Amino acid sequence: MKLVTLKTSEYGQSGAMIGDEVLNFALAVGSDTGSAARWIPASVMEILEAGPEGLAIVERLVKDTEDACDGEKDRLRAIGALNPYDQNQYLAPIPRPRITWSHGGAYPAHREEMARTQGREPDLKKPLHPSGFFKNTNAIIGDGAPIPLPANAPDYVDWEMETSFVIGRKCHNVKKDEAINYVGGHVIMNDVSARDWVPGFQLDKNPERNMALNHFGKQFAGFCPLGPCIATKDEVPNADDYGFSLKVNGELKQQDNVKNAFFSLGELVEYLSHWMTLMPGDIISRGNSSGVGMAEEPRQFLRPGDILEMEADGIGVMRHEIIAAGD
Amino acid sequence: MKLVTLKTSEYGQSGAMIGDEVLNFALAVGSDTGSAARWIPASVMEILEAGPEGLAIVERLVKDTEDACDGEKDRLRAIGALNPYDQNQYLAPIPRPRITWSHGGAYPAHREEMARTQGREPDLKKPLHPSGFFKNTNAIIGDGAPIPLPANAPDYVDWEMETSFVIGRKCHNVKKDEAINYVGGHVIMNDVSARDWVPGFQLDKNPERNMALNHFGKQFAGFCPLGPCIATKDEVPNADDYGFSLKVNGELKQQDNVKNAFFSLGELVEYLSHWMTLMPGDIISRGNSSGVGMAEEPRQFLRPGDILEMEADGIGVMRHEIIAAGD
Repeated sequence: MKLVTLKTSEYGQSGAMIGDEVLNFALAVGSDTGSAARWIPASVMEILEAGPEGLAIVERLVKDTEDACDGEKDRLRAIGALNPYDQNQYLAPIPRPRITWSHGGAYPAHREEMARTQGREPDLKKPLHPSGFFKNTNAIIGDGAPIPLPANAPDYVDWEMETSFVIGRKCHNVKKDEAINYVGGHVIMNDVSARDWVPGFQLDKNPERNMALNHFGKQFAGFCPLGPCIATKDEVPNADDYGFSLKVNGELKQQDNVKNAFFSLGELVEYLSHWMTLMPGDIISRGNSSGVGMAEEPRQFLRPGDILEMEADGIGVMRHEIIAAGD
Repeated sequence: MKLVTLKTSEYGQSGAMIGDEVLNFALAVGSDTGSAARWIPASVMEILEAGPEGLAIVERLVKDTEDACDGEKDRLRAIGALNPYDQNQYLAPIPRPRITWSHGGAYPAHREEMARTQGREPDLKKPLHPSGFFKNTNAIIGDGAPIPLPANAPDYVDWEMETSFVIGRKCHNVKKDEAINYVGGHVIMNDVSARDWVPGFQLDKNPERNMALNHFGKQFAGFCPLGPCIATKDEVPNADDYGFSLKVNGELKQQDNVKNAFFSLGELVEYLSHWMTLMPGDIISRGNSSGVGMAEEPRQFLRPGDILEMEADGIGVMRHEIIAAGD
């Protein structure tokens, strides 16, 4: 099942992809006298919080729609409960997670290319523990929303395709072998980065740029595209072996498989839940591999009009246009 | 006005302090046929989001109650809408901010004491920019909630009294002189820290502790007490000149004034809003001054049964008992 959040209001409305269409849960249920009493959570976060039973309720609604006769589907289309995916706007499937954590230096290939841009030898042995940082919630956008080049740092904005997972169940001190039981599904993230304001930037010697330990170059509005959906676990049979890629203006830039990351999904959950209590809806991003613009020769950065297209097996495709900032 | 969140459910219920009592807005409004149609936001976050008009509505309700005759107050007490502050449980006034950012190295006095614990010369000149880190939302607790010593790091847990402010209005690229217009009020925070898992810990040479750049020692559940209230701006006439203190078991440990911090409220808003878009309810914490347990001789850390008591002029007092962890 591929759960989405339709941008029908500030808070959005939960739905699911059905072929190349989207079912709006609230409209579908509200229009069916036989199921008007069904409880359908308003948000994808609430579906996750409701646990396996919450997912089962939604799954039945999706399956009923998939199996419906053409007349019933047409009725749902007529009332706007079912319409083409591309005709809607989207928030991130979880527009406001409590935690969004992004894993840094996750793939040997990315460590290697970044060391090269900095003129140093790469350290390619598996680290003792995963490290990373929080992305702020106000940076999150959904599929199709434009990514503005911030007026304060427009020149060196780069892409970082990351696959991510969402916590489905409160957890603390979970061991890696049972970690998958605490996962609600999978999602794509882009750790968009103004390279001149994250550590390791070598284009100039401006001392202000050395304040970059805050990772503030990764925190601008729109710098955390998240989507297109929460793909439930059945959509991704092996959470530690699936491919992903990123294209810029149709040209393949990044392509890798989560199996090449230093840490498995289980290791990430074990480590993070050692420190933090993780809650349903929390996003753990598994980090970026090679192929960023910073490491191309010559360097490539995003410009207004560029189109980012990210794809992950079992999750789907997410697209964004780069625009000039409004402020 | 001092806005609180009563722990009546997972999401809580907004209210305000009136003397040593608390008014539960929903119960107060629901019981008054004359005002049953009044719109009262369910949460303090929504009151802030509603802007000056939202605050004005709530202010009228608070004033009506303050001015009420004894009989009316007794009626409110009889229905549970007004009762002693100490008889309730509390969530943080904003239980789930989008952003909680804590300023590090904010006071010269704290820089000095920490340099001493590390056997190095302190750098006491004003930094180029404020630096800091995010606290995770799942660590937030309200006034009176116990702070568990985490089973994974129970031995070196320390206090860091911080005064904070809450954003009242969406902002980006705000200049320091107009910053106060974007602030909704003031609040106390404690950046509770397991010292052995934050940078600079010198008690041993365990290499695992050097992974501490994640600041994970500041992220355990309960490590972000926030409260006791959002004190609206009228309660703190000068946002850059008010005192605060922390006691452990009644003994004064920390005492300073925000005027001694390197950066003013306006400078913090200007810097952070340069990078991020700040939203109503976001918490910016102004950092910790001297007097932490780590810098005492001999070092002092928190033990089960200890009582933390934090006070800030115009905001109030917040208390927490330290307990052994359940997990």
